[in-house]
Amino acid sequence: MAQATPDLTRAAIERLVRESIYKQLGKQVPAGNEAPNPLVVNVSARHCHLSPEAVEKLFGPGHQLTPMKWLYQEGQYAAQESVTLVGPRSRVISNLRILGPCRPLNQVELAFTDAIALGYDIPVRQSGDIEGTPGCMLMGPKGFLELDKGVIRAAPHVHMAPEDAAHYGVKQGDFMKMRVGGDLGVTFDRIFVRVSDSFKLEVHIDTDEGNACRLGPQSQVELVK
Amino acid sequence: MAQATPDLTRAAIERLVRESIYKQLGKQVPAGNEAPNPLVVNVSARHCHLSPEAVEKLFGPGHQLTPMKWLYQEGQYAAQESVTLVGPRSRVISNLRILGPCRPLNQVELAFTDAIALGYDIPVRQSGDIEGTPGCMLMGPKGFLELDKGVIRAAPHVHMAPEDAAHYGVKQGDFMKMRVGGDLGVTFDRIFVRVSDSFKLEVHIDTDEGNACRLGPQSQVELVK
Repeated sequence: MAQATPDLTRAAIERLVRESIYKQLGKQVPAGNEAPNPLVVNVSARHCHLSPEAVEKLFGPGHQLTPMKWLYQEGQYAAQESVTLVGPRSRVISNLRILGPCRPLNQVELAFTDAIALGYDIPVRQSGDIEGTPGCMLMGPKGFLELDKGVIRAAPHVHMAPEDAAHYGVKQGDFMKMRVGGDLGVTFDRIFVRVSDSFKLEVHIDTDEGNACRLGPQSQVELVK
Repeated sequence: MAQATPDLTRAAIERLVRESIYKQLGKQVPAGNEAPNPLVVNVSARHCHLSPEAVEKLFGPGHQLTPMKWLYQEGQYAAQESVTLVGPRSRVISNLRILGPCRPLNQVELAFTDAIALGYDIPVRQSGDIEGTPGCMLMGPKGFLELDKGVIRAAPHVHMAPEDAAHYGVKQGDFMKMRVGGDLGVTFDRIFVRVSDSFKLEVHIDTDEGNACRLGPQSQVELVK
């Protein structure tokens, strides 16, 4: 997962310079139009979300996921556990990471590159909107699980708290643009806005989108209404 | 390779409607601001260009490439011949297509997804600008060829004739934007302009870029200065 860390963006550097100048002048930095939170952009590699029942079927009765790496959103983690996905043409993706904690729904999120490799035609959906999507077979060390739906390409989206939404002038369900600079500069014109008190400001794009603009730690990123 | 064929774009449909209306009115369609040529966008999958000497080394003395599929640019073709690429960590891509006719330089064009799979860190370059780029090993049915440079990610670019350049108000070496519509709408902000009398108007993006915006026959595409 690449991360355009806030400390390395032009905006953050400009803020540091501004703060330093105001400090030398012996003045307070004016609040002005500063974003309340730094913008973090993460590339989500292919992964799945599973229900507690699915985890038990794949890893054995009573099994619980073990956090391996904590993600930017509070309480979310990449689990130590992974599964093998078998697609419609018996092609396989090994080591499909499980993200925890468990959810009520089973959902597999792939990039189009993954889907093409598997021989899938998958729809672009918001997380949780899986009616009418294709299924797959998952294999774990203790069993198989057949999903009759749930394989999607997750639409690019931004998590934000109400204060971020107020700053950017957007609301739940809106679309924003995200500009990524550099010699492969790309503007993503349809970033879906998700607002919740529990969210930290973070854009999620997939590996195809991240590779298209070569998102990295040095990338200049900007959210625009 | 996906192709946003000109007959299916909104612009083309609008033109047909306009022409039909003018015909009913018994009038000539005004020349106005019409683009002189339809906009074609093609996704280039990974491929290589080889010199005649390289082809002989890989396929045997006297061997010449056999056209399998003609491409949109005059005289260019995907050859029946393909090679196996071995990367720096001994990882392999089989069936790397050769594009003909032969060129003076050997050059391999990969998407970032390919490069990551191979364990490469490859630079974004214009075609032909291969100084300081990584090399690779190529394997053919009759021999090996070690390249000490030439593996690049091709920068997204547009081929056009001088009349297209005049219409769009750009010149060789400029950058344009390309907007791709749909629910994964993306604007590519850095499409490099290449102008030649021999070029037909065609944008080339790679598979990462094509997958990021899900470019397909129905995609609405627009070139903007």
